[in-house]
Amino acid sequence: MDPVAAATPPERLLLGPGPSPVHPEVLAAQARPMIGHLDPWFLGVADEVAGMLRQVFRTQNTLTYAVSGTGSAGMETAVVNTVEPGDTVIVGVNGVFGGRIADTARRAGADVVALEEPWGRVVPPERVASALKAHPETKFVALVHAETSTGAHQPLEEVGALVAETDTLLLVDTVTGLAGVPLEVDAWHLDVVYSGTQKCLSVPPGLAPITFSPKAEAVVERRSSTVRSWYLDVEAVRRYWGAERSYHHTAPISALIGLHEGLRRVLAEGLETRWARHAEVGRLFQEHIQDRDATLLAQEGHRLPQLTSFGWPEGVDEGKLRRRLLDEHGIEVGGGLGTFAGTAWRVGLMGEGATHANVDRLLDAVDGLLER
Amino acid sequence: MDPVAAATPPERLLLGPGPSPVHPEVLAAQARPMIGHLDPWFLGVADEVAGMLRQVFRTQNTLTYAVSGTGSAGMETAVVNTVEPGDTVIVGVNGVFGGRIADTARRAGADVVALEEPWGRVVPPERVASALKAHPETKFVALVHAETSTGAHQPLEEVGALVAETDTLLLVDTVTGLAGVPLEVDAWHLDVVYSGTQKCLSVPPGLAPITFSPKAEAVVERRSSTVRSWYLDVEAVRRYWGAERSYHHTAPISALIGLHEGLRRVLAEGLETRWARHAEVGRLFQEHIQDRDATLLAQEGHRLPQLTSFGWPEGVDEGKLRRRLLDEHGIEVGGGLGTFAGTAWRVGLMGEGATHANVDRLLDAVDGLLER
Repeated sequence: MDPVAAATPPERLLLGPGPSPVHPEVLAAQARPMIGHLDPWFLGVADEVAGMLRQVFRTQNTLTYAVSGTGSAGMETAVVNTVEPGDTVIVGVNGVFGGRIADTARRAGADVVALEEPWGRVVPPERVASALKAHPETKFVALVHAETSTGAHQPLEEVGALVAETDTLLLVDTVTGLAGVPLEVDAWHLDVVYSGTQKCLSVPPGLAPITFSPKAEAVVERRSSTVRSWYLDVEAVRRYWGAERSYHHTAPISALIGLHEGLRRVLAEGLETRWARHAEVGRLFQEHIQDRDATLLAQEGHRLPQLTSFGWPEGVDEGKLRRRLLDEHGIEVGGGLGTFAGTAWRVGLMGEGATHANVDRLLDAVDGLLER
Repeated sequence: MDPVAAATPPERLLLGPGPSPVHPEVLAAQARPMIGHLDPWFLGVADEVAGMLRQVFRTQNTLTYAVSGTGSAGMETAVVNTVEPGDTVIVGVNGVFGGRIADTARRAGADVVALEEPWGRVVPPERVASALKAHPETKFVALVHAETSTGAHQPLEEVGALVAETDTLLLVDTVTGLAGVPLEVDAWHLDVVYSGTQKCLSVPPGLAPITFSPKAEAVVERRSSTVRSWYLDVEAVRRYWGAERSYHHTAPISALIGLHEGLRRVLAEGLETRWARHAEVGRLFQEHIQDRDATLLAQEGHRLPQLTSFGWPEGVDEGKLRRRLLDEHGIEVGGGLGTFAGTAWRVGLMGEGATHANVDRLLDAVDGLLER
């Protein structure tokens, strides 16, 4: 076999559902010299990462860290540590990721009560309330804060208050939400919340920030069965992230140093400023794309600014248009997932990508392609 | 909270059990601009990574890829995809990592027949043969090729030939072995083999190369129960790594570009040359450390050159010595794990770290510290 040439990526503007554009300083941080995962210096970095994650999650939760895997590993960590075989869980399913939580929970041995809603809609708090009444022994209610497959923005505050009065946990997927739209883990009484790095944090994919409330920690501690995963077992992992500092698995050093730099940038901008920037840029794009006869797929009043899912009018070949956008303009957007595959686009204006200039560049390119 | 300063690591010479030193070109590859995980360019990189992994594993196996997690995620992938609840598995336990396979297999629902050997010794092929006779329905036999906790080098060829004649699979942990000592996946009839990146490949931690033989693929396809992990389910993951290219989870882009560069370097050196370099440098270190009254903990004739575990003579405070080596000389070595904690050192001369100059630097530093 001939030697393989070095991998030098072509230039891309990343306006899909993730990964989002990464600042050169964050990329440079990933190239810092290697160091041991038990080195006192690196343990300090891990502490700082956990501290900054607490700020971004708006929580005081002790058990806050980055799972050594992508957002879906965060989902699996949330599920397998709380579920025991035979448990009932209630899962809002209004897109791909709610479905994925349900699938993951079944594999962990749970009986899943799926609250299905049409794709693009959010799960009404009343549905959660009545499901909880019907299944009072439920281990957790799971909702997707930012449904990456549809662009729906799930309200959490009311459900949080409701679930807080029970022994049930509230599990939240905010892979695409964190640092893009308001999220208040403590104030909203969210118990297990996970995210990914490659969305509004603008850090390369590979880590999953996660946080467990004291209520969730107590549930994990009271388990009568062993967690089905060794790699994601939070009781073991927290002996590394906590004061004990004992070896569990080798932490992904470079990725964590990248995340450290990315979190520094998020906090330097300020969370509220970042939320406002996403809100403004996303609203602008949504206005303009509707001028081009596109139909937004998320329910009005519950649209994420950072991730817009829309259908093109009849006659537009979305796949061909998307490929030409990539080939001729170097701009990546996403196609539809599941129900929306082959008809929809997903445009992400996330993290470093959420700028007016990027909206202009995308619309100009699309207009040019549609004219021909 | 005050803003956190940028994380700039102190200079370290990494001679512990991992991570090993990483070449600047590999680090630089991790800082290349971000690109989408479904971008045609990146799919080409993923193909090249799989192709180079086949060369390093010495296999033609189609199902060869990098798991999106560290070596332990590779272990869990190997176990959860093959085990179904109630299966019997035979696991050689002669150190931490054999014990971890047994633990992971129990969590997946297996009945584990543990072939325990004293730490530092290898598992005799006859023991495997008689265990297989006693448990003919065994799903897999698992052995640790390179036991990172003891430095024992498990022979595999004879067991491979033996297991190949049965319906049982041979599962091999070569986290510390790959590219450091000879490994022949196809010629030795190994069925599920996983590794890590941060050992003899000299790539940062975060990915787990893995390969499944056609026999192992058939076992996975014949499962009657769903794999307990969503994240590590190989039937789903292979739709991304294979021709289908469908989305499963977002691949860790930067880490894979780093691995791509690291594999290029391994193959440019040549596998046999790299094995010989490890053998020579490791043997040299083992001779010299014994001159300092250290006791090698791995059984004679079965010592890994790349990872040496040894006990200091009475009166040497290993923890203090190790800390001074780090603080005063910037050299990291590892302490003992499990049985050997508090008495042993583990010295890794792996990948970029396996040089005569590093042996000299380590011994000079240790001699200086012991004199005082």
